[in-house]
This record gives sequence, C-alpha cells and structure tokens, in this order.
Amino acid sequence: MTSPRANTLAVSTVIFALRPRGAGPSAHVLWVPLVRRTRDPFLNQWALPGGWLSAEEELEHAASRTLEETTGLAPKFLEQLFTFGDLDRTPGDRVVSIVYWALVQPTEADRAIVDDNVRWFAADALPQLAFDHNRIVAYALWRLRTKMEYSRIAQAFLGTSFTLAQLREVHEAVLLRPLDPANFRRSMESSGTLIDTGERVAGARHRPPRLYRYTSTEPTPPTDPTNRHEEFAHDDRIR
Amino acid sequence: MTSPRANTLAVSTVIFALRPRGAGPSAHVLWVPLVRRTRDPFLNQWALPGGWLSAEEELEHAASRTLEETTGLAPKFLEQLFTFGDLDRTPGDRVVSIVYWALVQPTEADRAIVDDNVRWFAADALPQLAFDHNRIVAYALWRLRTKMEYSRIAQAFLGTSFTLAQLREVHEAVLLRPLDPANFRRSMESSGTLIDTGERVAGARHRPPRLYRYTSTEPTPPTDPTNRHEEFAHDDRIR
Repeated sequence: MTSPRANTLAVSTVIFALRPRGAGPSAHVLWVPLVRRTRDPFLNQWALPGGWLSAEEELEHAASRTLEETTGLAPKFLEQLFTFGDLDRTPGDRVVSIVYWALVQPTEADRAIVDDNVRWFAADALPQLAFDHNRIVAYALWRLRTKMEYSRIAQAFLGTSFTLAQLREVHEAVLLRPLDPANFRRSMESSGTLIDTGERVAGARHRPPRLYRYTSTEPTPPTDPTNRHEEFAHDDRIR
Repeated sequence: MTSPRANTLAVSTVIFALRPRGAGPSAHVLWVPLVRRTRDPFLNQWALPGGWLSAEEELEHAASRTLEETTGLAPKFLEQLFTFGDLDRTPGDRVVSIVYWALVQPTEADRAIVDDNVRWFAADALPQLAFDHNRIVAYALWRLRTKMEYSRIAQAFLGTSFTLAQLREVHEAVLLRPLDPANFRRSMESSGTLIDTGERVAGARHRPPRLYRYTSTEPTPPTDPTNRHEEFAHDDRIR
C-alpha cells in the first residue's frame, strides 16, 4: 500500500530578456535564463529558476528571491502568470507551481550571472526542459504575444523613452518576424498610445531619431487597504 | 513555543451572472452567489464558493465541482483568475487560494440553487465577506472591466447571437453606467469584431432588431501534447 500523495507548493519564474542574437549589430531576440538541476528528478536537465514555497514567505517575494539568487537579476516587471497543478506534472507528490514572469531590458540583462549551472537560451530554441517547463514557457510566450496587441507591455523591454525603431525591434523579437517599418509607424501613430517627447536621440550626427514614450492611461488594478503587499499587481502594470 | 505554520491549498470561484435588478423589465446587473460559512473562522459570514484542494484532484475540476455543489451551476466560462497567498489573509496556517472565475448567462443563472446558505448579491452591493474575499471580488470585477475593452469576453453573458441592445446591456452592467446607444453602435461597428448574421429577432412585430455574432479570430492558447486536461485554458477563451 502506498501512502497518499500530498500537495506541495513551489514558485517558478519565466524570465524574458531582450538581447542581441550574437555579437555585432544583429537584431535583438528573446532569451530565457535556465538553471541546471542538481538533483533528481530530471538531474542535469535545464529548468526554470524557482524553489519550494515556505509558509512564511509572500508569493512574489519567493519569486523575486529565487530569481535573484540564480540570475542576479532584480527585474522591474515581475508579475504572476498562472498556477500549474496538473496531477501528472511531477512524479511523487503533486506539486502546484505558482508561476511568475519577469521582463528584462538589455541593460539589465547584461548584469546577469552566468556560470556552469545558469545558462541563457534563445526562447525559440529551448532544449527539452525538466517537468512541464517547456509548456510553461510556451504559455508565457503566447501571453506575451497576445498582450502586446492591446497593452503597453513592450515598455518593460525599453527605457522610459525610446525610438520607433527600438519599439519595432521589441515587436519583431516577440512575434519572431520582421515588420515593415512604414506600416509599423502608421499603426503606432494611429493607436493613440504614444507621445512624441519632443526630444531626439543624443549623439546621432544626421537626422537623429525622435524619442517617444507611452501615454500613462493604462488602467490600474483596484487598491484595497488590506493589500499591503501589493501582491495582486495586475499583469499589465509596469513598475 | 508555537508549531510552525504550514501551507494549505484551497480553490475558490467568483461567479458573475447577468440577471435583472428586480422584477419587471428593469436593466440587468451583475450578481454574485455567495455561501454562508458554517464554521469558524468567520462563522455565518458570506464567502466565495470553494473548498480545500485534494492532492488527487485537478485544479479546474475542484473549482467546477465546488461551484456545482453549492450553486447547481455548470458555467461554460470557467477560467483561472489569480492565486492569492498573502501571509496575513488567514489566521492559523497560511492558505494559498487558487481563484477561478465563472461567467453565467441569465438563462443559466435562473437554474441556480437558492437556500438559506446560498444567496445572490448584487456585485456592487456586497456585505463584508469572510477572509479577503471582498478584495478578490474587486479584483475580478476590475479584470472583467479591463478585459471587456479588448476581448470578446462579453460573449460569455450572451448566446451565440445577440442584438446590439443586449450587448450594450452587458457593457452597462459591467461598467455600472449607462452608455449612449448611438455611440455604442458606432463603436461596435468600427471595432471589426461583430458580424451581422443577416437574421433578426423572431416574434418581434415591428422592425425586429438585427442579430450579431462575434468574429472568431480570437487568439487561442498554444496546444501541447502533455496538456491532456486543457488546464491552462487562456482567460479570453469562451468555451
């Protein structure tokens, strides 16, 4: 007779960073840092950064702590994505994983730790990961693509102000296809979500490109006096 | 010395149904069925339907089972909303609640169980609920309002085809304010999301209103061979 399964709780994070594909002036693509497992099950396979949830730690804190410990990153955009709990996702006890996602700018990503047990992979060329982590990354990518259509989520990969070419590069990296610059410009100009800052890129010699920023009319989640930890940060919000 | 806290897992569901405010031809409003607590903590206070998660039950199954047991409903739209786990949301052990939300059409809502321990409340006039359930409903309402701006989620309150007046009534109930019929019509016609079915409401004597349906171009989540349970149904999907 086997003992009954128990529920155990874990927190993991999918981190997407915009970084160049290789050396030189090549286009940026999405990268995902992964951690090599040092124990069974799935010994030596790559997995999302994360860990068990202590009963004394807030959910978002567990996500930011584990991702900081493994990658050295402290992303401004860190939000809850989805909770995965399929009965067959783990051998042994049933593990319910509360998954967060983080979006990281190129300048932040450059400061990340890289060692034998942490490696960055192009999001469209992942190896076979531990558990159902390929499925989790696929879900996160799908959410990112969907949200980019109607929200200002691309902002998380950019600074406060940016050129249209930089914004287009984010869209191209997320959609995995080139976009026509003139069509993209028209589409953004008619969306009503961008403001011309009146400034231009400094240091450029000839016709420096204009800098834009997003309008700040994105809806924000309800506030509540009991919400001291701001735990239910809505997933459109850029902090 | 006190024993350390443990994590325990629960599943709860916020159910929104479109129903008339009172008797007669008054406008529809959003209603939420709540369950009276029969034990401490929060004895006799109203709470969201839900229960403890067994290690042998899929998350979505636990949500649909507990809402069916308390309300008799089997909503077509049932999706994961958010996981709440603040350390201070419960006395004693820390409870992590995976919250689902369900959207119910008026005809479905009429079949719901009502007894001493299950009562329907107007979503904008809830009493003080157990735990952090007021905050959870406020979050769900906020998500519903936000999603209605960019998705076809209003569909969940309607049949396959509907009149513009019915669609406007859903928007009015969710936004809690009247909308100008002519502006609403223009906005919907220019959105490109509605198709005129060519049919009209049956039985109306004079100028029966046209029936519309949504286009079916809503993006769908990635499929995965391991996803046997379709557990990660994306939150725009209408099933």
